[in-house]
Amino acid sequence: MMVEALSEAERADALDGLSDWDYDESRDAITRSIAFTDFAEAFGFMTQIALIAEKMDHHPEWTNVWNRVEILLTTHDAGGLSARDIELAEAIDSILDG
Amino acid sequence: MMVEALSEAERADALDGLSDWDYDESRDAITRSIAFTDFAEAFGFMTQIALIAEKMDHHPEWTNVWNRVEILLTTHDAGGLSARDIELAEAIDSILDG
Repeated sequence: MMVEALSEAERADALDGLSDWDYDESRDAITRSIAFTDFAEAFGFMTQIALIAEKMDHHPEWTNVWNRVEILLTTHDAGGLSARDIELAEAIDSILDG
Repeated sequence: MMVEALSEAERADALDGLSDWDYDESRDAITRSIAFTDFAEAFGFMTQIALIAEKMDHHPEWTNVWNRVEILLTTHDAGGLSARDIELAEAIDSILDG
């Protein structure tokens, strides 16, 4: 399935709904950094996201250092931010805030 | 439990046994980068390591991008590489090569 990068207007629209995410212009990506209580909680969160990402066939770039998880979403096939990143970001937000 | 950074001689000794790891001088850390078949295999590996790390109460810094996992081991409390990193590196090698 061909995926296209969002236009500037679409991106602006999408980012309005993602207040916990930052836009990384150099990567045309969005990032979110989360601090949990400890490693077990951080990795538990990662496991939930891993299952969702695998089901969506769209995966985050992420780094974990003990209780912290840094997530970057972009779509390599589209050369930038696509609707799939927005969908995954919303799923992540819903795990964190749900 | 107080953990001390390895001396240069101890570190050289330990690195001799860890041929798949690189020494990162700027962090006084060791790193290993692994490519798996796909995300499921990469995250499966991370889950195995997460359980071991939690049991050891010593955790990696790591980044995952689809099928790739980059691991950095150092001991923040010791200000550098310690025996705990060597122990975790050996456990990781044994999962990968076992």
